[in-house]
Amino acid sequence: MSGTARRQIHIGTLILENGHHIGGWRYPEAERHGGHDFDFYRRIVETAERGRFDMVFFADYLGLRDTLDPDARSRQHNVAYIDPVSLITALSVVTRHIGLVTSISTTYSQPYDVARKIASIDHLSQGRAGWNLVTSATDAEALNFNRSQQVPHHERYQRAGEFVDVVRKLWDTWEDDAFLLDAASGRYYDAGKLHLIEHQGEHYQVKGPLNVARSPQGHPVVFQAGASEDGQRLAAQTAEAVYTAAQTKEAAQAYYRSLKAKVAEAGRDPASLLILPGIVPFIGRTEEEALEKQARIRQAVHPSIGVGLLSVMIGHDLRPYDVDGPLPDIPQTEGHRSRQQLLIDLARRERLSIRQLYERSSAFGHREVAGTAEQIADVLQDLFEDGAADGFNILPPYLPGGLEDFVDQVVPILQSRGLFRRDYEGSTLREHLGLARPPNRFSASAAS
Amino acid sequence: MSGTARRQIHIGTLILENGHHIGGWRYPEAERHGGHDFDFYRRIVETAERGRFDMVFFADYLGLRDTLDPDARSRQHNVAYIDPVSLITALSVVTRHIGLVTSISTTYSQPYDVARKIASIDHLSQGRAGWNLVTSATDAEALNFNRSQQVPHHERYQRAGEFVDVVRKLWDTWEDDAFLLDAASGRYYDAGKLHLIEHQGEHYQVKGPLNVARSPQGHPVVFQAGASEDGQRLAAQTAEAVYTAAQTKEAAQAYYRSLKAKVAEAGRDPASLLILPGIVPFIGRTEEEALEKQARIRQAVHPSIGVGLLSVMIGHDLRPYDVDGPLPDIPQTEGHRSRQQLLIDLARRERLSIRQLYERSSAFGHREVAGTAEQIADVLQDLFEDGAADGFNILPPYLPGGLEDFVDQVVPILQSRGLFRRDYEGSTLREHLGLARPPNRFSASAAS
Repeated sequence: MSGTARRQIHIGTLILENGHHIGGWRYPEAERHGGHDFDFYRRIVETAERGRFDMVFFADYLGLRDTLDPDARSRQHNVAYIDPVSLITALSVVTRHIGLVTSISTTYSQPYDVARKIASIDHLSQGRAGWNLVTSATDAEALNFNRSQQVPHHERYQRAGEFVDVVRKLWDTWEDDAFLLDAASGRYYDAGKLHLIEHQGEHYQVKGPLNVARSPQGHPVVFQAGASEDGQRLAAQTAEAVYTAAQTKEAAQAYYRSLKAKVAEAGRDPASLLILPGIVPFIGRTEEEALEKQARIRQAVHPSIGVGLLSVMIGHDLRPYDVDGPLPDIPQTEGHRSRQQLLIDLARRERLSIRQLYERSSAFGHREVAGTAEQIADVLQDLFEDGAADGFNILPPYLPGGLEDFVDQVVPILQSRGLFRRDYEGSTLREHLGLARPPNRFSASAAS
Repeated sequence: MSGTARRQIHIGTLILENGHHIGGWRYPEAERHGGHDFDFYRRIVETAERGRFDMVFFADYLGLRDTLDPDARSRQHNVAYIDPVSLITALSVVTRHIGLVTSISTTYSQPYDVARKIASIDHLSQGRAGWNLVTSATDAEALNFNRSQQVPHHERYQRAGEFVDVVRKLWDTWEDDAFLLDAASGRYYDAGKLHLIEHQGEHYQVKGPLNVARSPQGHPVVFQAGASEDGQRLAAQTAEAVYTAAQTKEAAQAYYRSLKAKVAEAGRDPASLLILPGIVPFIGRTEEEALEKQARIRQAVHPSIGVGLLSVMIGHDLRPYDVDGPLPDIPQTEGHRSRQQLLIDLARRERLSIRQLYERSSAFGHREVAGTAEQIADVLQDLFEDGAADGFNILPPYLPGGLEDFVDQVVPILQSRGLFRRDYEGSTLREHLGLARPPNRFSASAAS
């Protein structure tokens, strides 16, 4: 190690109301909550804050995930819940340190509205808001928004690229010191520090200004998760942190190298984009206990929902095939291409049956790690130090124990190894992540 | 009075961050806040909750209000602030009793998103959410949402009518007892209690279901403010409470009679829609002190913003005219027709100059009442008992004193007269307002 401050792991967690595994809600140690219990969410986030996590993250979906038949559907959790934008807004005034990240899709929203909501949350939280830019890739969502089918893949990303550009321009509408509130002169703001954006693009025409002052972070942090070619290109150009899924160290390293190179090609410092693979930890006092826990949660997945959800993830109806036979040939779809390919690769590489594949993918394709706290810390350290990750998105398979065990057992090991903060050092999410506060593009100092 | 429980006044308050008068932010007793200070909003709402108000209400505007020139513009408050949807979401978890109402425009949003946000706030607040349905009537807003000019008046209301219909259908997507969370059987919900809406209308196509469980109020309370013919028709058919502006008792009575008759014509019980005129109270220990306070706040309005905002409200550039001369002839516009007519009527009736009209309308056209607490209580009681109101929307001209005086001085008088609750009796906004919880249109018991 050099004499400079040691590079540290960033840790966030993605919270679904019953954990990140399809079988999690049936696990005997899980608490069961219907997705509308704020006090439970609050308790979970307080646990993450106690663990000094950089952030919590709530994903989103604009409808009911298709599982091909009503029987499968009625067995899934995470179908109805407090909308995640509302949830982090409420959490912003009852937490103090932790970053709060929500997905919002660009496909069925307007940049003015998204800029406004995320900037408002940044004000409410005093600088802890993050926006995970996603696009909506399913017909089930399109049917709730006046369309008969989803927007094609390439167009979705084209629109998303222009969308995030408009949002960031809107965030610079007011300079940081625009507001005077000078009762004596009657000047409420300095008219020279207000800027219209006059955006006239291919997909969006937005004059501005935003009706929210520039927020504590200047720009709230922009996350993305796209792993397809279009998704990586957009992330390289515009994201500050990327959630990703990789089943192996080699896949994670390849993705890390590839995306950091693309960031450099886009003329950005590779360190200005953080790569955060998902990890589903099963923690036991012994490795055997951890594996047993994992097996019990997998067995809680009924075949109808296992096959149903896998079919949707992979974009092909697998119900006609033998559940204990191999995965058939799968045509490419307009949906989540990257997740689809990851699952196909996994099945081919390890020669998995359909049942084995849904058991392996019932944490939505993310990598599961079962072991002692020490073993899990070893895995994270190895990925972090060997060019595969800047940090991790921890996906507890069930709640609250799946998160509590990580905070109480894995975090102290990472801290003792000097790999993770013992206390919050900054106050904003941007500071937790070591990302610079962007200057205002319109201000005289930035222009000079 | 009969022997039954006495009919009681409903009281809400509309909070702008610096009060409801254009001059309020410059008044020496006002605290000045830039619209992004959550602790201030929280304190204001706690004051209203201490006063046992039915609700607080936050209005909205999707851009920067046009005031015709930069000088006037830089003198106005309420230009940048925490988005009101975000604000009531945050307030929902730090308040206990008071209803929380926000405007959301139907013009540039999607019913799926609005249904979801308001239902989520209803869950977070345990039944205290209200949605004030508005349409967006200015080009300044259109220019932030891919349009070159506003949607025409009649079309806006056509869309709004279909919009609220879709939202209410979505709120019935899940029956109240749909969720089982039965780990033993693996049934997360009862598939028979999930209902698609399959809405195929002229403006919206929405399949459903909503991804939020039916909320504590069944349907959050729907408010409206439209006073035009289209607006009244929509309110008579679909609103449960209406915010209105009337400068005189006679105008308020005429509106009350007319709208209640339209409600009956629409086949509804007239008592199922509450009419809440706005009142801007200036409270003094003597009438003279109150009038002096009012005069000082009016004088704080600079002519450039007075004429500028009046021009926008009335839809006609008044800058070329003598500020001390009469109001010229005004052509009808596509904007807020009802507010426009109210101002023209006021000027003609009282032969006001442009300056006098902007001074009189610098509380955005609402009725100002200056006097002692006793006098203000008398005015409210008279309007309430003489067929002009079911309650009031109190618009404090400055903050926090403008609200504190009302709560500490006027509310006790109304309570002592038996006209207002001494303590909260119900727990939901619907219960505060005496409105029935709607049955689910899809449930077997409702259908039978």
